[in-house]
Amino acid sequence: PSKEDQLMVMREAPHLLKFADESFSPSNEEELLLAYHETNKITLAKTYFDCKEYDRAAHVLKGCNSWKATFIKLYSMYIGGDKRKEEESDGILGQNNSNNNFYCNKNIPVIVKELETLEHHKLNSNSHLLCLYGIVLLENKNSTEGQEVLFKSLVLNPFNWSCWLELLSSFTSFSEATVYLNKFYKALQTSFEYRIMLLFFKVTVNQVFFQSSEEINSDLATLSAIFPCFSYLNAQKALIAYNMLDYNNAEVLFDQILLSDPLRLDDLDTYSNILYVME
Amino acid sequence: PSKEDQLMVMREAPHLLKFADESFSPSNEEELLLAYHETNKITLAKTYFDCKEYDRAAHVLKGCNSWKATFIKLYSMYIGGDKRKEEESDGILGQNNSNNNFYCNKNIPVIVKELETLEHHKLNSNSHLLCLYGIVLLENKNSTEGQEVLFKSLVLNPFNWSCWLELLSSFTSFSEATVYLNKFYKALQTSFEYRIMLLFFKVTVNQVFFQSSEEINSDLATLSAIFPCFSYLNAQKALIAYNMLDYNNAEVLFDQILLSDPLRLDDLDTYSNILYVME
Repeated sequence: PSKEDQLMVMREAPHLLKFADESFSPSNEEELLLAYHETNKITLAKTYFDCKEYDRAAHVLKGCNSWKATFIKLYSMYIGGDKRKEEESDGILGQNNSNNNFYCNKNIPVIVKELETLEHHKLNSNSHLLCLYGIVLLENKNSTEGQEVLFKSLVLNPFNWSCWLELLSSFTSFSEATVYLNKFYKALQTSFEYRIMLLFFKVTVNQVFFQSSEEINSDLATLSAIFPCFSYLNAQKALIAYNMLDYNNAEVLFDQILLSDPLRLDDLDTYSNILYVME
Repeated sequence: PSKEDQLMVMREAPHLLKFADESFSPSNEEELLLAYHETNKITLAKTYFDCKEYDRAAHVLKGCNSWKATFIKLYSMYIGGDKRKEEESDGILGQNNSNNNFYCNKNIPVIVKELETLEHHKLNSNSHLLCLYGIVLLENKNSTEGQEVLFKSLVLNPFNWSCWLELLSSFTSFSEATVYLNKFYKALQTSFEYRIMLLFFKVTVNQVFFQSSEEINSDLATLSAIFPCFSYLNAQKALIAYNMLDYNNAEVLFDQILLSDPLRLDDLDTYSNILYVME
């Protein structure tokens, strides 16, 4: 759903795309030249990645030095390691949780090491590499540093919804989330589009931590005026109503979502719960 | 492997890409305008498709009329129906074969009907729609017409390797394949790139039907001169050697492939067989 949500935003506001792309485009001559020379390998690796051949994708890019190649290589290693972890734990519930270190993503130490040997400037100016670094830091139980790195990534490129969700999943309390919301408010006031992304995050944070207020309702109204048909937004409204035990309103909202987007599966467990409770 | 092979060709000869793209680009003002108005829906549908939500992809494009939207909608329905067939047959071997009509792709009748109601001109000028039409005709046991439609698609766009493979899989004998090889020889002499694709097909056809000749060796040499590091080509050489019971040569060739492309899995069953026989 994260990728989907991201593209939903792009559908509703295609002009945002140029911002999303900028963070990946080379900002200096050296990277431009490197990426140009590595174009063929990068294309091949992306194809392997799409075919879910993560090890081959990483293998093809060995020795490449552009940001783009480095990111695809390390991200392939991360996803490949995750896939192997799933296979090894054989889908047994509880074997994957954080208290069990037997089944883990064995590529993470290599990824961390390579990210740490990158030039400081190179890492800190690329939102994708920073996002991956944040994710592996969180998996290494290094929450504080991981959150800080995800924050940096989002300040560079606020249109990476997956990155927001990774940060959100690292919060253990609403007050912890509030600290970051305030940090983002200081950092992301530069453009209208940045503020919109922050508003999406704010609404989601409040929903996830069972908060509701006049302020959030007004934020929801602001976003709905811009994206009137966006199922994700309407689902946040429904979930907030549900969290406030306002089942009638939640049901009406879910009915509308199902009408406009009948094959959407997200949050339908909550809808089913509402129908059961109201019977 | 088909998508991979296709992109391998692109890697080795990126100038071919512009030909591959042309077949999808609108050839008239009307389509240009239609596709422009449907851009957002098409983007959303492609994202659903990438997330394997085939039903949603098809649903989003209901009522769209551009070639591009029509193709993505019908192809999503085809893949979605195929996925459901797999799930229903629950992976039981033998339940999927051609003598059993209980488990079938239930979307095919709708796809065929919609393709048949398209304007004749529209269908016949779009290689992607033709390719899909050929595939569903073959699944409907309509081999002769299906082969003819795939042939038309390939004449329009010879860079769709999946389409060549669909045609190949429909041949029941080498003489049947030869008839089509000759037809292609008449139709695809127009450009160097077209002839290269035909040469790939010719070599593969000969390999699959256990043929070997001086002519095929010379074709292989021609292709190898253009694509010296292409694993697919080297694998065809190895398989032809294997088919001719020349196990020594086949083993040497497979050793080279594994050295240059160590994570490639295709055809390794044959390699394992060679090692077993030669022990």
